[in-house]
Order: sequence, then C-alpha cells, then structure tokens
Amino acid sequence: MTHSEKIKVGIVGATGYTGVELLRILVKHPQAELCVITSRSDAGKPVTEMFASLRGYLDDLRFASPQEADLKKCDVVFFATPHGIAMSMARELLKAGVKIIDLAADFRLKDQDEFTRWYKIKHACPDLLAEAVYGQPETMREKLKSARIAGMAGCYPTSIELGLLPLMEYEREHPGTFDLQTIIADSKSGISGSGKKSDVSLITAEMADNFHAYGLKGHRHQPEIVQQLRLLSGNDALDMTFVPHLLPTIRGIHSTIYVRLKDAANPLDFQKLYDDRFADEYFVDVMPAGSHPETRSVRGSNFLRLAVHRPGGKDLIVVLAVEDNLVKGAAGQAVQTMNIMFGLDEKSGLDWPALIP
Amino acid sequence: MTHSEKIKVGIVGATGYTGVELLRILVKHPQAELCVITSRSDAGKPVTEMFASLRGYLDDLRFASPQEADLKKCDVVFFATPHGIAMSMARELLKAGVKIIDLAADFRLKDQDEFTRWYKIKHACPDLLAEAVYGQPETMREKLKSARIAGMAGCYPTSIELGLLPLMEYEREHPGTFDLQTIIADSKSGISGSGKKSDVSLITAEMADNFHAYGLKGHRHQPEIVQQLRLLSGNDALDMTFVPHLLPTIRGIHSTIYVRLKDAANPLDFQKLYDDRFADEYFVDVMPAGSHPETRSVRGSNFLRLAVHRPGGKDLIVVLAVEDNLVKGAAGQAVQTMNIMFGLDEKSGLDWPALIP
Amino acid sequence: MTHSEKIKVGIVGATGYTGVELLRILVKHPQAELCVITSRSDAGKPVTEMFASLRGYLDDLRFASPQEADLKKCDVVFFATPHGIAMSMARELLKAGVKIIDLAADFRLKDQDEFTRWYKIKHACPDLLAEAVYGQPETMREKLKSARIAGMAGCYPTSIELGLLPLMEYEREHPGTFDLQTIIADSKSGISGSGKKSDVSLITAEMADNFHAYGLKGHRHQPEIVQQLRLLSGNDALDMTFVPHLLPTIRGIHSTIYVRLKDAANPLDFQKLYDDRFADEYFVDVMPAGSHPETRSVRGSNFLRLAVHRPGGKDLIVVLAVEDNLVKGAAGQAVQTMNIMFGLDEKSGLDWPALIP
Amino acid sequence: MTHSEKIKVGIVGATGYTGVELLRILVKHPQAELCVITSRSDAGKPVTEMFASLRGYLDDLRFASPQEADLKKCDVVFFATPHGIAMSMARELLKAGVKIIDLAADFRLKDQDEFTRWYKIKHACPDLLAEAVYGQPETMREKLKSARIAGMAGCYPTSIELGLLPLMEYEREHPGTFDLQTIIADSKSGISGSGKKSDVSLITAEMADNFHAYGLKGHRHQPEIVQQLRLLSGNDALDMTFVPHLLPTIRGIHSTIYVRLKDAANPLDFQKLYDDRFADEYFVDVMPAGSHPETRSVRGSNFLRLAVHRPGGKDLIVVLAVEDNLVKGAAGQAVQTMNIMFGLDEKSGLDWPALIP
Repeated sequence: MTHSEKIKVGIVGATGYTGVELLRILVKHPQAELCVITSRSDAGKPVTEMFASLRGYLDDLRFASPQEADLKKCDVVFFATPHGIAMSMARELLKAGVKIIDLAADFRLKDQDEFTRWYKIKHACPDLLAEAVYGQPETMREKLKSARIAGMAGCYPTSIELGLLPLMEYEREHPGTFDLQTIIADSKSGISGSGKKSDVSLITAEMADNFHAYGLKGHRHQPEIVQQLRLLSGNDALDMTFVPHLLPTIRGIHSTIYVRLKDAANPLDFQKLYDDRFADEYFVDVMPAGSHPETRSVRGSNFLRLAVHRPGGKDLIVVLAVEDNLVKGAAGQAVQTMNIMFGLDEKSGLDWPALIP
Repeated sequence: MTHSEKIKVGIVGATGYTGVELLRILVKHPQAELCVITSRSDAGKPVTEMFASLRGYLDDLRFASPQEADLKKCDVVFFATPHGIAMSMARELLKAGVKIIDLAADFRLKDQDEFTRWYKIKHACPDLLAEAVYGQPETMREKLKSARIAGMAGCYPTSIELGLLPLMEYEREHPGTFDLQTIIADSKSGISGSGKKSDVSLITAEMADNFHAYGLKGHRHQPEIVQQLRLLSGNDALDMTFVPHLLPTIRGIHSTIYVRLKDAANPLDFQKLYDDRFADEYFVDVMPAGSHPETRSVRGSNFLRLAVHRPGGKDLIVVLAVEDNLVKGAAGQAVQTMNIMFGLDEKSGLDWPALIP
Repeated sequence: MTHSEKIKVGIVGATGYTGVELLRILVKHPQAELCVITSRSDAGKPVTEMFASLRGYLDDLRFASPQEADLKKCDVVFFATPHGIAMSMARELLKAGVKIIDLAADFRLKDQDEFTRWYKIKHACPDLLAEAVYGQPETMREKLKSARIAGMAGCYPTSIELGLLPLMEYEREHPGTFDLQTIIADSKSGISGSGKKSDVSLITAEMADNFHAYGLKGHRHQPEIVQQLRLLSGNDALDMTFVPHLLPTIRGIHSTIYVRLKDAANPLDFQKLYDDRFADEYFVDVMPAGSHPETRSVRGSNFLRLAVHRPGGKDLIVVLAVEDNLVKGAAGQAVQTMNIMFGLDEKSGLDWPALIP
Repeated sequence: MTHSEKIKVGIVGATGYTGVELLRILVKHPQAELCVITSRSDAGKPVTEMFASLRGYLDDLRFASPQEADLKKCDVVFFATPHGIAMSMARELLKAGVKIIDLAADFRLKDQDEFTRWYKIKHACPDLLAEAVYGQPETMREKLKSARIAGMAGCYPTSIELGLLPLMEYEREHPGTFDLQTIIADSKSGISGSGKKSDVSLITAEMADNFHAYGLKGHRHQPEIVQQLRLLSGNDALDMTFVPHLLPTIRGIHSTIYVRLKDAANPLDFQKLYDDRFADEYFVDVMPAGSHPETRSVRGSNFLRLAVHRPGGKDLIVVLAVEDNLVKGAAGQAVQTMNIMFGLDEKSGLDWPALIP
C-alpha cells in the first residue's frame, strides 16, 4: 500500500454497540476508509437513520446485507457480531487476502473443545485457531505485526489480563512468587457490555438504581482469561475466580483484582514494577501510588488506567483497573490492532482524551 | 360485606409495572385480600420468582392463566393489561357482580369512534362506555361511589387534569376567563411509564444520560385529557397541545402546564384558588407560592404535588404538577378508587410518605 | 408503659439521610411518637420545608436546636449524627432514664484506643463502651432486650457481618474450617451512604455514569467488622481485606464476600447452613441456590437478601449480600432495635416490601 | 501569524466544567497551544491531578494563580469563570493585543442597567459592551471575524436562539407572521450546566431519579435571549416565557419551544425554511420532518440538532433543539468562535461525532 492510499475497511455487524463504536472511531481515522458495512437485520437502511450521532459523517452509507456485501475488496474486515459468524467467513476472506479482526469469541480460545464447551457449537476452522493471535497490543504486539487473524480479547479479559500483566511476567521469571490458585477478579461492567438487544432485564426501569452480580455458575470470559494468564505466567496450574457484576452505567469496566504473595515479607516494589512495565505503553496509564482510578476517567477513550495497592503491607496485592469496555475493551483496541497489522502509528485515530464530566 | 371480611381482589396482568405496584400496595392493604393473579405469559410461575421484592409476602401465590382463573369469585378485578382485555371480559364479570377497575384505556374515551381512531380496534361493549366512570377520585368521587366500572385516567392525564382542575372549574363558573385554545402541557415521564417490555429503545445504554420528546404526531393520552378538560370547563371547543418527553428516571411524571388568561390584568389569587379547591383532598398537595415540586417528593407515594405560578404577573399561568406515574398515576389511584367503590376509608392502604432520597 | 401509650422518640441530627429515613419510618410506626427532632444547622425550620416528602405527616414539627431541645422527656433518643455527639450526651440521658440508639460510631468499637486511632478523638465515656451493645438484632437480640445503649453496626458492616454469620458460627463450633486470614469483602455502596453533604466529589456530574474504589488505605468500618467477626468466630486472629466502592445508585449496598475453606473437599451444604440459620429471621432472606440478589430487591425495605455460592465446587465460598444502606443498614435496623429494647413486635413499623421498579 | 505558529491560548478559571471542556478540546486542536491556565483555588496543582482524564496530554502543566499568570503573552484568553472576572481584566488584555472570549455573562447584555439588575454588580467597562459581539457563529459570524471581545451566548440561550433563528429572520422580513408575545421555551438541562460546585442540592442522592423546574421567578438567561430574539426579529416588543428544568443527566440541553402563528392557515413550509437556513451551517443539523432529536445524539460534540413540528397542522410551531451544554452550549462554541476570530477553518479541532451510547 502506498502512502497515499487508505486502508479499506469492512465491518460485519455494525448495528451493535461495538459496531457503532468502530464507526465513530473509523470515520475520523486518517488512514482508514469505511467501505462496506453489513447488517443482517437492517440491510438497506441508511446508517444515519439508526445512528443520528453520525449525521454529517456517513450520510451516504447504507447497511448492506451480508450476502450482497463484497467484503473481499476490503483490506481488513472487523467482525462486531455474535460468535459463530467470523469463523464461518474467515477462510474465504483470508484466501482473498483480507485480514480479519474478530471482536467476538471465535478466535479467542486455542482449544476447540473448550470453545465448544462454552459456546455450544463446533468450531468451523480449528486449523486457523493456532494461527490466530489472541490478546491485546500490549501483550502480543510482535505477533500481531504479521498476523492475518486477530482474536481480540473480550472487555473483561482485557482489564484483567493487562491488570495482571506485570505480576504474571514477574512470576514467569520468579516462579513461586504468587499464589496462582487464589486469584480473584471482582469485575463490574456498565450496561453497554450486555449489547444492544431487546432484553427486558436491561431496560432502564430494571437497571437504573440497581446492582447485582451474575454468572457465578461460569462466564464465557473466564476460560480465555485463564488461558492467557497461564501463558503469561508460564504456569499451567494457574486458576482464577471471576465474578462479574452489572453496573448501572452506560460504559466502563472496573476490575478489582486480588492476588496473594506466597511470602508476606516479599519486599518487591509493585508500583515500580508496574511503572516500568508500562512505561512505553501509550494506552496503559499506571496511576500514582494510592490512586483509585475512576471509570469515567477513560470514558470514550482508548486508555486503561491502573493502580496497584498492597493494603497494610501484607500479603495481598489489590489491582484496580478501569477501561471503557467499548473502546479499549473492544473497538478501540481493535483499531489499535489494525494499526499494528498495517504498520501504522499505533495511536492513529485513537489519540484523544476521555469525556468528562 | 361485614366488617371482618376482606375485599377479594383479582388482578389481570400482574407482571407489568402497574401490576406489581398493585401487588406491592395490596399485600399491605388492611381490608383487601389478593385472590387471583393472572398472567398469560407467566402462568404457573410463583409470583416471588418474578418479583424477589415480594419474597416473604406472596410466597404461596402463583400466576394463573387467564383461562383457568376464577375471577368471578372476586369482589373486584383490576386490569393492568394492554388495552382490549378489560372490555372483552367486562360483561361477564359485571353479570357475576364483580366490579371492574381498568387501568388501561378501554373505559376512558366516551366516544367509541374516537376509541377506534386511537386504538385501532372496535370497542367490544360500547353500551358500557356510558356507564363507566372515567377520571380520578378528586374529580369523580360521587360517581365512583356507586360505579360498577372505573376507567382510570392515564398517568399523564392525571397530572394534567388535576393540575388544571381549579382553573377549569373556575372557567365553568366564569366563562371566558382563560384562552381555552392555547393550553400547552409539556410533560416529562420516567421510563416505567413505557412499561416492562423488551424494547431496545428502552434499555439503559439507550436511555440513561439521554432525553427526548416523542409522540408529536399524536399521543393516545391527548383525547382523554381533552375530553375531561371539556367536561370540567363546560366548554366543548377547548383544545390542548400535549408534548410528552422521556425522562431518564425510573418513576415520576412532571407536567409543566401553560394556560393564558384572556385578561392580563385579571386579579385572581391563583394560590388561594388552588389551596381552597384541594383543601380537603388528602392526596393532592398544593405547595406554597413559589415552589418547584420535585418528582422524588412523591416517589412511591400516592400524592400529587402542585405549584401554581404567574411569571412576572402577566397573562400566563404556569402549573407544575408531579406524581409517581405508577402510584397516583396508576396503581395507587386505582386502589384509592377501590376504597371509594367499597365504602372504605379512601386512604386505606395508601397512607405513607414518599421514598427520598 | 401501658398499652395505650406510645414510645416518645427523639432524634438528634434529623436532617441527614439516616435522619430523614428515621422520620419516614417513625411517622407511620404505630407505637412510636416523634417528640423532639434536633438540628444544629436548621433549628427553627419546619421539617417539611426541608423534606417536602413529609408534607401531610409532620406539618407542625420544627427542628429544635440541640441546646433547647428537652431530650430527657423522651423514652429513646436516636443519634443520626456524625461521631462524637452521642458519647457527649450519653451519660446525662441515661441518668434521666432515656435509652440511646446511636447510628454513628461512638459505641461500635470496644477498644477506646482503637476508637481514637480511627476517629482521632478521645472517647468521652469509655466506661459505657463495655455496656453498649454493638451489632444487629440478628446477632445481638438477647443483649438488646435489656440494653440501655445500642451502637448500631454501620451499613457496610451489617451486610458483611450478617453475610458471614452462619460461617463464623460454624467456625466457632468447628475451628479450622475456614481460612480466617484471607477473607475479602468487595463492597459497593450507593451514594446516599456518603451522607447528605456539599462535597463536590458527590455531585451528579461527577458520580453518575462513574464507578471507583476508595479507602484502600483503610476504612473506618473495617475495625468494627473485624471485631465482630472475631467475636462471632471465636478466633482473635481473624483478619479481613475490605475494599469499598462507590456505586452510582441512590441506595443499596452489595457485598461480594470471599471466604476459603481449608479443605477443598469439605462436603458441607452451605445452602442449608444459611437456610437453617436464618429460618426464623424475618428480615434476612436467604435466596434459592444459584441466585444473584439485586440491590433494588430491598430498596426502601428492611430486608437483607443473601445468596451463597461455591463456584465450581472448589474451596472458595462466595456470599452475595444486599441491603438498603439507609434501612437495614441504618434507620430500619435502628427501629428494629428500638422495637426489641421496648418489647414490641420486632417488625412493628418495618413490615413492607421493597419499592421496585 | 505565519502558518507554522500556533495560537497561544490562556484560560482563566480552568477547573470548572466549561474549563476542563476547553482543555479537552484544545489539547487536540491542531492550531492552538495551551500556554497559561489559571485557577484561584488550585494554583500550583498539576492539571492532571485534578483531571485524570488529561493524563498523557497535559502532564507538565500546572494551574497558575491569576496574579502571577502572564496572560498578556497569549493571543486569546478564554474566561471560564463566574461573571465579574472577565470585565475586570478586559481593558488591560485588549491593550496588550489579546483577544477575549468570555463564556460567562460579562459581555452578554448590551444594557448595563439590565446587567446590574440581574447580576447585582456594576459593570466595570460599560464602554466595551457596545464593542463586544454577543451570540453564536451562526448568528454573528461576520462581526466575529473582526471582534476583539466575544460574549458567548449561554447554554440555554444558544439552544433557543438557534432554535428560533429561521422563524425570527422570517418575521423580520414578514412582520406579523408570529405572535411574538406568547413564545414559550420549556428547557431541560443536564446537571453539568449547574457547574462544578459543592452544593448539596446537586449531589447524586438528591438529583438522580429526580426532575423539577426552577427559576420560575426569573432566570438570568432570559434577558439575553429576549435581547437576541428582538434583534433577530427586528421587533422590540417581543417577549418570551422561559421555564428551565433540571435533568438527571450529566450533559445535554433539550429546549421545547412553542411559537404561535398569527394565521393558523399560513401555508409556510417550515421544514424547508429550516433546511434552507441551516444548509451551510456545519454544526447545526436540521433533522428530517417528524424527528425527535435526542440529547445523546450530540453528547460530547459541537452539533446542535433541530426538529420543527406543527402538530395537527394548526397554529402552533413546536421546535425541538438539543445540544451538549458544555460543547455547543459553551466550550465548543467558544473554540468555534476563536477559529473565526483568527481566520482558521471554523471546524478546526471540533469535527468529531457524538459519543453514543
């Protein structure tokens, strides 16, 4: 691609929240061009009829039906769909030289049986699972540079995997530092994480002024987190308890992560460990010691903010991680990944501060 | 009915918001007993499985299917259903001596053509329309005492009809006081007024931190308001512009009502007019001059609070009226009506303050 | 007290959220009478001028200044004040035969040095600390029956102490069942828990659509929880990590509590343990296995709802506990305590369901 | 100024909501450079300590005290202060060749007596009032090009003045078309419009799930709206009733504006009138006939969206106007004005879509 050409982008399933967030980001991306946008349910409808917020930006674009859309002319296709779609189209797109960035779950789990256990369908292209790169730019940058398929980490997983990254890497170099059996991630997510769907449990009169946990019996994000933490720590016996909760906010994930040191007297400087690890990561912000990051401090932005605590100087490390589930937890991270896959400046189209208040 | 017997109550359609509000009120009503509760969609399910808030109160009750439910054994049946249900069951229930309180629209409009125009179905028992008493206790108390059918005013209409009651009655006695062609009701309603339904436009990520008008092309509540204001003012040419808006709150309606005096120099004391009119109405609270009633000041209660303003002492009267759309605007008012229809203390089961904060 | 007399109640500091909640409850309490209500800042002001929600109920009552108020004529005085007030007035009131229910912190900690460490003032009546009964009806009913001073547990502590009660009592009888060093309480509280104060961090534009942890350096509720859990478990080495978070809701606390079994193969039936322990506790509702209690299911009510989970059948017990921080976590519990102290039905004035939606 | 130089910008009072919004916009403005940021209350504090959302963007900047700050080296100074500050510094800054953009009220009212009536202080430089340009780019573009002082219209006024602009201009050309005595603006504003201040009435537990009117006795925005509508319509007898309400949202203003035609049979095509008037205004979006614009459709963006209705084809025009009170209603519009004053592309630094959901 010459300097003057823009990356041709397709989006499959652009009517959900990650889809419209991709649109919001990509309409202003200086090196990308929206070519094809599909929607099964809303084919033919002008994009701005559904999203008034995009009036003035995408006035001439209509949702195409997935059948008619010529996705093969794209350089990259984002899947902002439920699981099962990306894997059914992957082979053909790859053959046509199109790169794939899946925001759903088709390329997250490496083990196809594990995939079937959680998603109740057979994987359509298990051979591509090995090739696909799972994760975030911060954990998988080198691999992403040459990847054809990126399986983006889910919203909860990104907050937890990046929140624990320095500890897991330290563990790999110093095995036995942490108790890898007792990790707990108590996560809270804003409602947009539940998607844009007509579900009575999500309506405002049910959700506003309310809070509850869910998924104690098992949540699909858990196996991918465990898979990644094992990879990062180099310890296949690592286990984790994940308890998600539903927050009455629109956006925002806050993960409170608990990890125990095996030696309560371990003198490690965790603030420094985090500062050093993320010093060169533009979108990961380690806050000063003693901070309590707020979800709104990343609202609408691609930043993930972290604070690391050791209450009372005892054996427990408490990591606080916040992100916008639709940006760093989904669409923003996916564009960051696209930037890497196409050799662009990683910040391109993503470099703006959060919207507060 | 002897003193020791309780009124046997049936509720058709108890799974929506007005339905569960009836349950919340009636479980603690000292002279009523919940006998039959029906739900088409959830027949057989324990009530507390749907409403954890009622655990400890209705642990033995299940939703009955409308077919199997023996509603004829009730003294009164509330319809907390979509329109069209009450009218289809009314004749049979009346024959069995059961009184009917309809919270939907079947017995609101006196003119069956008007009914069909707005609700797109033919009325099933037009002969009963004349008999049915429409309105609120405050406007129709005497008629309700002997009524067999009460067609409860809608949530918006109650705030507007009671908000304008003193002016309309004054107009009837002093025709020509107000400009009856230019009344405007700019109303704002919390989301529970839209019902408990799986509609994507109602989900929290769409509604929270958002506000908009709707229904500018015509809203079903308008004809019943106009019908009632004409009745109260004695002027059949009265017209009104009604603009509803959707508030990102759970409960609460705020109507801002604009009425013009024909004579800008009219020296009438509106505060006194309102104070006098509602002096004996327990559930209507005229606030002191200069007040701005808050929706939360009536949250969960059966009160409607009013303030009457005349900005700059000019020709415009601005009435501010707040109510809880599910209580005074629906279930509470319906129980108040039941109390009247059965000769009980009107406040029975309804006399508690709002929940603030 | 003869049957016909009502308990004369005084409230010191009735303008905050626990204060107005006491008013809301006590105006409808069949055996209590509000006699004196004080406020330093708003002395002389009619109660309904501050709380429009109480119009019609307390129209003749004004806030008295603490100096002029004759609290000694009361049978019981509630302190809904910041800490430091109750202890300064306790001795004199007790001498006059007045019982004291403190909703602040003056009679929570048994150790006066601990009190000073956390509250930065010397305790005014350390001799009364031993006499005062700390806790909830469910943990301290017998002692409360004859108590002169009740130091009500805080809002967070109640959710955690009752949430862990069955486990702690089981531990006392079967020492070594649980790992008492690694208990974690990840708690989330609605904003009313922060009190009614003009603090810029609490305003809606800062709080709405936002979420964050706080107090990682140490929160005043922690020592009282640890004190109580040690008492209940009989193990003075017990420790706990407490991480509070601020929820963008008005009311509601959700505590997610993590406790490890020492033996991952322990076959104990935790659902049964909880069901049995709370079978006779009217205001504690153990939900069916697999439940995720919602904060709104207790909104405005005196119930605390619990669910106990053991994810994957491993060594970790996860307890979910919800309460309304102003009712079961403060004013409701205080009235429940009053009922016990005066030999009334414990449910008196408190027996109504939550307000949903 | 040569092409390569950036405009040097100073902000007085950068710690409030309009201030931080200016920071958010200007850090990414390609032709502006933040030089001096002052705060009386927070002098010396790093900007990112107060606004974590700006970490990574303004890490080296501290709030300066107004005394020490060298504002004269700036090309333009924005005042995001309470009223009274800009006018006290204007003369000196102008003398130094610095342009002034006041987001407060000092340069809004042309009549100094009117200013004193509403703001209770004497104007410090009445001679500059005549020179200052009040309004928005859409109404005052030509004058702004050469202006030294811009008095930005308030948030409510912008929604109303632009909402009525086509009608007022039509009236000027066709006097007598509208009844200029009976205009009503029923406006609703999110809480950020009340500023970032520690006011107990603004805290979340007071505001959330609540709604009310305020300012019926007179609101400071009314005289500036009337002044501008008179100017635009060419009719000095125009009057208007303005009723503001407080919405439980963070951002967003929705004005519902009612204007009566003198002739109910007037055949004017209002949709076309609006479409034509705003065809070349990038930031004003006239939505299709029948639309109900949502406040979130402009959240975080500089757009104002409008819909014009004529319910039932009668004599009443209803205009619905939404804007983000902090962007188009304040900081965005001020930057748009700066762009004009310095001959830049008017969209520079402002061209991005709204943040939904």
